[in-house]
Amino acid sequence: MKKKIKCFNSIKELIFNYKFFISKEIKIKGWVKHFRYNCFIIINDGSTINNLQIFIDKKFSSLVKKINIGISIEVIGVLVLSQGKEQNIEIYANKIKIIGKFSPEELQKTILQPKTHSFKKLREQAYLRFRTSIFSSILRIRHNISFSIHKFFFKKNFIYINTPIITTYDSEGAGAGEMFRVTNFDLKKIPLNEKGELNNNLDFFGTSTYLTVSGQLQGEAAASGLGKIYTFGPTFRAEKSNTFRHLSEFWMIEPEMSFYKLVHNMNFAEKLLKYVIKFVINNSYEDLFFIEKKNKRKIFKRLNNVLESSFERISYTNAIKILKYSKKGINWGEDLKSEHEKFLAENYFNNPIIIYNYPLKIKPFYMRINNDNKTVAAMDIIFPYIGEIIGGSQREERYNVLLKRILELNLNIKSLWWYLNIRRFGSVPQSGFGLGFERLIQYITNIDNIKDVIPFPRYPNHAYF
Amino acid sequence: MKKKIKCFNSIKELIFNYKFFISKEIKIKGWVKHFRYNCFIIINDGSTINNLQIFIDKKFSSLVKKINIGISIEVIGVLVLSQGKEQNIEIYANKIKIIGKFSPEELQKTILQPKTHSFKKLREQAYLRFRTSIFSSILRIRHNISFSIHKFFFKKNFIYINTPIITTYDSEGAGAGEMFRVTNFDLKKIPLNEKGELNNNLDFFGTSTYLTVSGQLQGEAAASGLGKIYTFGPTFRAEKSNTFRHLSEFWMIEPEMSFYKLVHNMNFAEKLLKYVIKFVINNSYEDLFFIEKKNKRKIFKRLNNVLESSFERISYTNAIKILKYSKKGINWGEDLKSEHEKFLAENYFNNPIIIYNYPLKIKPFYMRINNDNKTVAAMDIIFPYIGEIIGGSQREERYNVLLKRILELNLNIKSLWWYLNIRRFGSVPQSGFGLGFERLIQYITNIDNIKDVIPFPRYPNHAYF
Repeated sequence: MKKKIKCFNSIKELIFNYKFFISKEIKIKGWVKHFRYNCFIIINDGSTINNLQIFIDKKFSSLVKKINIGISIEVIGVLVLSQGKEQNIEIYANKIKIIGKFSPEELQKTILQPKTHSFKKLREQAYLRFRTSIFSSILRIRHNISFSIHKFFFKKNFIYINTPIITTYDSEGAGAGEMFRVTNFDLKKIPLNEKGELNNNLDFFGTSTYLTVSGQLQGEAAASGLGKIYTFGPTFRAEKSNTFRHLSEFWMIEPEMSFYKLVHNMNFAEKLLKYVIKFVINNSYEDLFFIEKKNKRKIFKRLNNVLESSFERISYTNAIKILKYSKKGINWGEDLKSEHEKFLAENYFNNPIIIYNYPLKIKPFYMRINNDNKTVAAMDIIFPYIGEIIGGSQREERYNVLLKRILELNLNIKSLWWYLNIRRFGSVPQSGFGLGFERLIQYITNIDNIKDVIPFPRYPNHAYF
Repeated sequence: MKKKIKCFNSIKELIFNYKFFISKEIKIKGWVKHFRYNCFIIINDGSTINNLQIFIDKKFSSLVKKINIGISIEVIGVLVLSQGKEQNIEIYANKIKIIGKFSPEELQKTILQPKTHSFKKLREQAYLRFRTSIFSSILRIRHNISFSIHKFFFKKNFIYINTPIITTYDSEGAGAGEMFRVTNFDLKKIPLNEKGELNNNLDFFGTSTYLTVSGQLQGEAAASGLGKIYTFGPTFRAEKSNTFRHLSEFWMIEPEMSFYKLVHNMNFAEKLLKYVIKFVINNSYEDLFFIEKKNKRKIFKRLNNVLESSFERISYTNAIKILKYSKKGINWGEDLKSEHEKFLAENYFNNPIIIYNYPLKIKPFYMRINNDNKTVAAMDIIFPYIGEIIGGSQREERYNVLLKRILELNLNIKSLWWYLNIRRFGSVPQSGFGLGFERLIQYITNIDNIKDVIPFPRYPNHAYF
């Protein structure tokens, strides 16, 4: 009878199940990361930050000359408990097969050569950085954050909604200049009418279309039937900002809850953030630990602080009082700058804070007007060291009030009629918020540049790969 | 001491937990669906296909006059076991509050008036159809399918990757005419150079950019570091097809596995589909049951047939032999038409089938050339009654072979250099496939038109809402 060799699909699965295969022959594959002494090859396959050590005896001496860093091998060998301190197990190789070659000369041209490269350097070869320890750690954490979000909403009976990417309306009041145009026109032969105006009705969708900046309005429509929904999809800004906090294409999570008022919205947002952080600490602690050591930045302390805290809730009006008292040069009615938010979260409260009831004039049309007629039921969650992480509100569910506001602000009612109709046909109180996915990853991983927490960042002049 | 009333966030949670609240006072909200006799109001909140019955005694007789279908109410009442056959529980109302109004005259203008509307009619008021039984059922099923996909990959240690939406390359060899252009140009003032050519370097990304048709190439880059990854995001086609099976914007799932060969790819795809179907039967049986009854279409039988079957695997060459023998007018080298696939899956095998090793000439450049030099390691999964549901392949991991193919096909090497480099720098065997999310939902729900399984369908001349 032929002996059956256990083939592992990944080093992660092997490490998780090794107790059942001690002294057994197994098969595993991976890329060669480095060598140790003359008798160990260290491999990794991207499934975990943990490498696997392969012991090679003299019979491989001629093969080993062909093995260099970056190539991939298949190993059949016996799983044994390791004598070394750095790992529990290692493989005593019986057979080694080279699967993919990579010459040392070629290696020198890439970020895969084994030394520490700057994040900027990694970004220049973004299509290769998945094989570096630091970036693969960040992406495994990103994956766990994403899954924890889906899982949380699933448990809470929220329905996942894919809102459209191609839209006719610029929500959030973003100017047309800040939105990307989507068109099927041949740009060299744009059809203009006699007055020199664009013949948008000849375009693919019969009108001018853009990349969405938010799925919120459609989310509200969905929540008006399904009760509680969330979106989790890409959104776009055509701003020419090339900062540590801006991307032209980024992912957003936007829950929307019927029958929720502002206070429920705040409670829920706090629960979501804490659930995600707890899940990630539980499921990504090895990667977080690796980044904390490598980048010499506090991660666990920050995250555990959030878990232990009750988010401080303060009205905009009281926030202004504190800021005036502290001589920060701001008056009621003005929007908080990030330096103000920073002062409140880091210096004054030293805690995540929720600021609510902002002045009507500095917030969008869809937020519910409070009884004072001066403020709206908005809420922003501010984290120390990162600033705003969530922005939300109770929505204006009263048809007449909403219509009046839209007219006052001179918004394009031609593209908002259906949104108004949600409030005309069986409207209910509703609340929701937006959470920038990449900002959340930045906070959790303590990575400075938002471009380093997304697989293929898009920003001005950068859309290759 | 004030008595504490249990507030339920949704009817689904109430139905799930009612055993612990029998004879207790609870609070719940929802939209009025209809009335029964003179003493029951039936409400629903979108969380489940199950309605909740509210018993109202005489003290509400004046209030009841103000309650009509479509409005929303908040009910405080005692949870009691129902005498009726249609439900287990009902609420004996103590207090009823009207939350949102909706006049019967307005109701008449909408698809929310209680009668059966055609899918076409619902689509015309797509922003309201979330509140209809049939569409909310479809979307709850869509939600469960989506979650089951994330859960499956999570369990299998695949890393979720968000590939970019804005790209410079048209993968799959889609012609530029089939891709949407993304631009920040003012379309009335397109910058042309002296030769009358587009000055694309002046556009936002410094080059011409499009909406992605597939995340596969970027997925391969990610898998070349992280081992096993999947994408799940929106993709686009600017084809002017307005059929039951086409959308301009739809969601795709694209896993990519390093170290997998074609056979592993097939095994894995079959496992994924069966896992999803099992999960959905388990978690969405009430909604599936509702659709089966309402649409008079078999759902459970079809799905259970898939679970019980082993997908039949047949090479393209043998498929052609069968088709020739059955006089279907097709020769080796020609692409299978959907009528051929239909014949094989429905008439010949009466089973899901996997056709593999297609002729080189009818498949894209990235598929691995087999030793016969005439076929590539492609595989398509064909389901009875729906046709192709998955298309995949082992990828060409040999740098020289890939380069030769790209040159032969005269593809744009300027935008493929980074993809070629994946195969130059430590290449490994790799396989993957694409699964159209909406097609899968169509199959599972047995809904004819793809526009009825997505919240806001995009197709020629339709991008409003």
